[in-house]
Amino acid sequence: MEALAEANHGHAVAYGDDPWTERAVADFDELFDCDTVTLMVWNGTGANVLGLASALSPGGAVVCTDCAHINVDETGAPERILGSKLIDLPATSGKLSARQLESLRHQIGVVHHVQPRILSITQSTEWGTLYSVAELEALCHAAHDLGLYVHLDGARIANATAALGGTREALRSFTTDIGVDVISFGGTKNGMMYGEAVVFLDRSLASHAGYVRKQITQLPSKVRYISAQFSALLHDDLWIRNASHANQMASLLHSRLVGRSDLSVSAPEVNSTFPTFSPAIEQHQIEALREWSYFYDWDTAGRQVRWMTAWDTQSDDVERLVTGLDHFLS
Amino acid sequence: MEALAEANHGHAVAYGDDPWTERAVADFDELFDCDTVTLMVWNGTGANVLGLASALSPGGAVVCTDCAHINVDETGAPERILGSKLIDLPATSGKLSARQLESLRHQIGVVHHVQPRILSITQSTEWGTLYSVAELEALCHAAHDLGLYVHLDGARIANATAALGGTREALRSFTTDIGVDVISFGGTKNGMMYGEAVVFLDRSLASHAGYVRKQITQLPSKVRYISAQFSALLHDDLWIRNASHANQMASLLHSRLVGRSDLSVSAPEVNSTFPTFSPAIEQHQIEALREWSYFYDWDTAGRQVRWMTAWDTQSDDVERLVTGLDHFLS
Amino acid sequence: MEALAEANHGHAVAYGDDPWTERAVADFDELFDCDTVTLMVWNGTGANVLGLASALSPGGAVVCTDCAHINVDETGAPERILGSKLIDLPATSGKLSARQLESLRHQIGVVHHVQPRILSITQSTEWGTLYSVAELEALCHAAHDLGLYVHLDGARIANATAALGGTREALRSFTTDIGVDVISFGGTKNGMMYGEAVVFLDRSLASHAGYVRKQITQLPSKVRYISAQFSALLHDDLWIRNASHANQMASLLHSRLVGRSDLSVSAPEVNSTFPTFSPAIEQHQIEALREWSYFYDWDTAGRQVRWMTAWDTQSDDVERLVTGLDHFLS
Amino acid sequence: MEALAEANHGHAVAYGDDPWTERAVADFDELFDCDTVTLMVWNGTGANVLGLASALSPGGAVVCTDCAHINVDETGAPERILGSKLIDLPATSGKLSARQLESLRHQIGVVHHVQPRILSITQSTEWGTLYSVAELEALCHAAHDLGLYVHLDGARIANATAALGGTREALRSFTTDIGVDVISFGGTKNGMMYGEAVVFLDRSLASHAGYVRKQITQLPSKVRYISAQFSALLHDDLWIRNASHANQMASLLHSRLVGRSDLSVSAPEVNSTFPTFSPAIEQHQIEALREWSYFYDWDTAGRQVRWMTAWDTQSDDVERLVTGLDHFLS
Repeated sequence: MEALAEANHGHAVAYGDDPWTERAVADFDELFDCDTVTLMVWNGTGANVLGLASALSPGGAVVCTDCAHINVDETGAPERILGSKLIDLPATSGKLSARQLESLRHQIGVVHHVQPRILSITQSTEWGTLYSVAELEALCHAAHDLGLYVHLDGARIANATAALGGTREALRSFTTDIGVDVISFGGTKNGMMYGEAVVFLDRSLASHAGYVRKQITQLPSKVRYISAQFSALLHDDLWIRNASHANQMASLLHSRLVGRSDLSVSAPEVNSTFPTFSPAIEQHQIEALREWSYFYDWDTAGRQVRWMTAWDTQSDDVERLVTGLDHFLS
Repeated sequence: MEALAEANHGHAVAYGDDPWTERAVADFDELFDCDTVTLMVWNGTGANVLGLASALSPGGAVVCTDCAHINVDETGAPERILGSKLIDLPATSGKLSARQLESLRHQIGVVHHVQPRILSITQSTEWGTLYSVAELEALCHAAHDLGLYVHLDGARIANATAALGGTREALRSFTTDIGVDVISFGGTKNGMMYGEAVVFLDRSLASHAGYVRKQITQLPSKVRYISAQFSALLHDDLWIRNASHANQMASLLHSRLVGRSDLSVSAPEVNSTFPTFSPAIEQHQIEALREWSYFYDWDTAGRQVRWMTAWDTQSDDVERLVTGLDHFLS
Repeated sequence: MEALAEANHGHAVAYGDDPWTERAVADFDELFDCDTVTLMVWNGTGANVLGLASALSPGGAVVCTDCAHINVDETGAPERILGSKLIDLPATSGKLSARQLESLRHQIGVVHHVQPRILSITQSTEWGTLYSVAELEALCHAAHDLGLYVHLDGARIANATAALGGTREALRSFTTDIGVDVISFGGTKNGMMYGEAVVFLDRSLASHAGYVRKQITQLPSKVRYISAQFSALLHDDLWIRNASHANQMASLLHSRLVGRSDLSVSAPEVNSTFPTFSPAIEQHQIEALREWSYFYDWDTAGRQVRWMTAWDTQSDDVERLVTGLDHFLS
Repeated sequence: MEALAEANHGHAVAYGDDPWTERAVADFDELFDCDTVTLMVWNGTGANVLGLASALSPGGAVVCTDCAHINVDETGAPERILGSKLIDLPATSGKLSARQLESLRHQIGVVHHVQPRILSITQSTEWGTLYSVAELEALCHAAHDLGLYVHLDGARIANATAALGGTREALRSFTTDIGVDVISFGGTKNGMMYGEAVVFLDRSLASHAGYVRKQITQLPSKVRYISAQFSALLHDDLWIRNASHANQMASLLHSRLVGRSDLSVSAPEVNSTFPTFSPAIEQHQIEALREWSYFYDWDTAGRQVRWMTAWDTQSDDVERLVTGLDHFLS
């Protein structure tokens, strides 16, 4: 908010030719230690579509997991705006293996099949899991070997960075170092009011990206408000500290849930836990709890739900939730 | 060919306002015993896209099997032209069950998910299998119950009709009688030089179909050539006799393959067999056989291939293939 | 900014199920004195695409002027996302006449031509002009008579409202009273950090709009920030006062430009002036002026430029510009 | 028809891997005296969309005349399938001038505007006029200078070739010799039952064309029927002789119309005449004539119609029309 108030003073040339945006782009260049093309956009769906659009040629397709956000939570925006098929491979705990990409090889060069052109992976994943650096490196290698680019959906890239070491080197270890081509770099889930960035590490993919951003409705007239927030977030690695905190709050939450008889829960890898209610708990108790504090179902049949922590979750919030559990599940 | 030669004499008003097309539409009305809207198109992919386009509303999606022709063999034409996602459910022997549609219910009404709007099923299926009338009826019922229309990809609807009784009543038993809304009615695979028909049994779906046909490049200027072929095919149920013959040839082929030690094969349901070569056969032998007479792989890893019979396959052709097998696999 | 700070406290359910959004929608209902469907979106291009998408059927087209923002300043977003043609009719001073719509009649019902489905008009126009209520009423009538819906691109609807009376009744006189079906209601150009609203006056057009908003990447996760700004803007007609002020500043600017020998300028209708430099002024002088204070060319060949005033322009700003003119053009 | 009957014997591998198609492609290579990529498609709209799709990059647009077939007679197929804007420039007698392309320069490189990527011109034009070689050369030069590719809609390329010399050299003079990049080569209007060819003179544009053909529903399974017709048409320059004949019949028709008091008509450039009925003729007389022998209106207000001659028009047909005129207009 403070970054915004500052950007709010005075006028500036619209659509990104402003000093705030120039600075934010330089901040991203420094973060990744390379000469990126970085474009600010409104939201995550827009970031994903822009990143993917830039790599697709006619007849091309996107490869992703069956639980990818682009596949199930974006109301078909990729298909509508890209006009391309998503080839969804079955994920295990939200993750894809390099070996799975081999199944694509038979369709390459055959005119009756869409041509895989870009692999989109999510780190940390929609299931709250983390790829190891070695796993991602193998995926990137396999993708490039098949002639595919690699897009990283980084709506929670900060949580992944925090979990994998919490440094800029950690970030680079699973992005620039292994050949990721373009990243959707999340801001909204890490404390920004709004705004995401598309970071092209392979600049050659960005040749039309400026036009595409506007064409897909993702060019903000007052870009500086997003840029100012990103600069504030990247400054002194605040984005990593925010995410570390969220991850720690998930660990705290987990530690306070372990041993309860009314639910079971695995240890979180980043900032989400997925408790499963015991059969003894009745559905109306779960609904009363949800009424008190909203959460999403994860696996309705299995009575599993998702509880996420955020950059602004406090340990008091965790304690309050535990008190709520005691109240509503007893 | 004879039907074409006749339509070739003299001039006619282009784009379908001609007596051949008028007659062919009447032939379809009679075939289905209802007042259809029937549009001739170039090919099967075009027929499918036109049929689906007519039922989709913005934000809507198509439901199909993971092995559906529209999902894997049309190079993403549906996604590109419809701008819609295909929700592909896992098929068993090429077929979907009514129960599987229940998995869609949770996403209906949720803005983050595409909205299922039309179910596309294939009869006979891409795997050479047949839905029973009861199975299709249950599927139609389940689809309509969820608010979905039903599209039938009938590239091989003739083979299905032949297998299910070989009468017009048999055709109606799995189309009009159970509430199918729109059909891609195949011609090319049943002896026509080219041409398919989109038959709207639910006329309300066809209100924009004439414009859409042209917009998706599927309006032939000399429609009469397709219409004339369809009239010839529908006359005296030639289309059913052609398909019956193809089905019988597949049975003959199967009977001549049973008991061989170099391959195993199940009984065909319509006009395709899927032999699996025994481990003793070496790959180069299979390739030599294919070089001699081309066929598609079906399951490369499992060494399963697809051999299809057609309206013009003769028993001599079957014997010749058996001779070839004896030669190349020994 | 104050509205935002307030919405920034505490958490809220995402994607619009929040009290701020509920209130903002009620504010719009009150403003238009009818039961609207109002959806907040990121920006003007997104608002236009969402409004148009909702009215189009397959094969349908949008009718607009050749200088419409959707036609020339949105990088083809409508064509890409809608998949529809824009039929652009020649504007006179940015405006269309009801009579011009007659030229569309011959193509209605002909399968070789796109079918006009929605008329999009801009008030106030891209040329800084205003339609009178009678002109708009005639256009709406002619459009409805041809079976077209009417979309109003209201990026500057506030300036139009201010110029046509400055009351809510004035707004309704050229929207609800004459049958406009859907409005892109501008916020960004009238003082908001970001955010526009799509107001469906014809609720039947909005049946799929919630899904389409997400599908075209225009659903903000934290909608409440936009809603809070709109409520603040609509409160006590601040939006009209902002726009009145901008219009007045344009009048002031015009009065200070009249009589100059180095440029000529017509009286503004809303908040923009279009000065034409005299032949005596050299191009490098214009560029020096632009370097000092950025502005857009309007008609390069005719040496006409566009100077706009805004809700936050002060009379001091006008005087400063006049001083700059004296300096750079002498 | 004879070519078809020949191709009808025996089976062939589907989708173009057949000897007929191989021969037809070689025929096109020989015709243009260069190594083309030539793909057979169903119809003219499909040919145009395929040719244009191959040259467009994201954010790109097509430039054409306001009377181009792609702009007004294809029901918006280009916009729907390409997702791209058509920038339509005003034609004079169906033709564009090189100078007009200059108006595009200001929008190149500006993110708010679509980026012109390919110029589509029609030869002979929709107005029955011809570009001279010099005019087309200037257009190609201007287009390439702006970074645009050049597509030639050659639905009537045969009539143009006949009119410009009637040799293969004449064809090359306005295609390969001046740098046209891709051609829609018409077959249907020149005697074929169906089928057009997309000829890529710039092979680099064709890298994805095979996939795109299938994706836009334009890959015939039995391509050989189209290929066989093209080979027959190209053999011994039959295509030019057909077109020459059509052009001559138009001249004959014109000569028989000149001097009539009931209509006026200009000399044809290729195979179409555009008579204008005199005010003395009443509309019901025109309708009676049309009832007797169908024709299209050209300019309804101006009472101008279009009469076309074809490869199979005979001088008897011309005389019969004259007799009809005498009868219905007296």
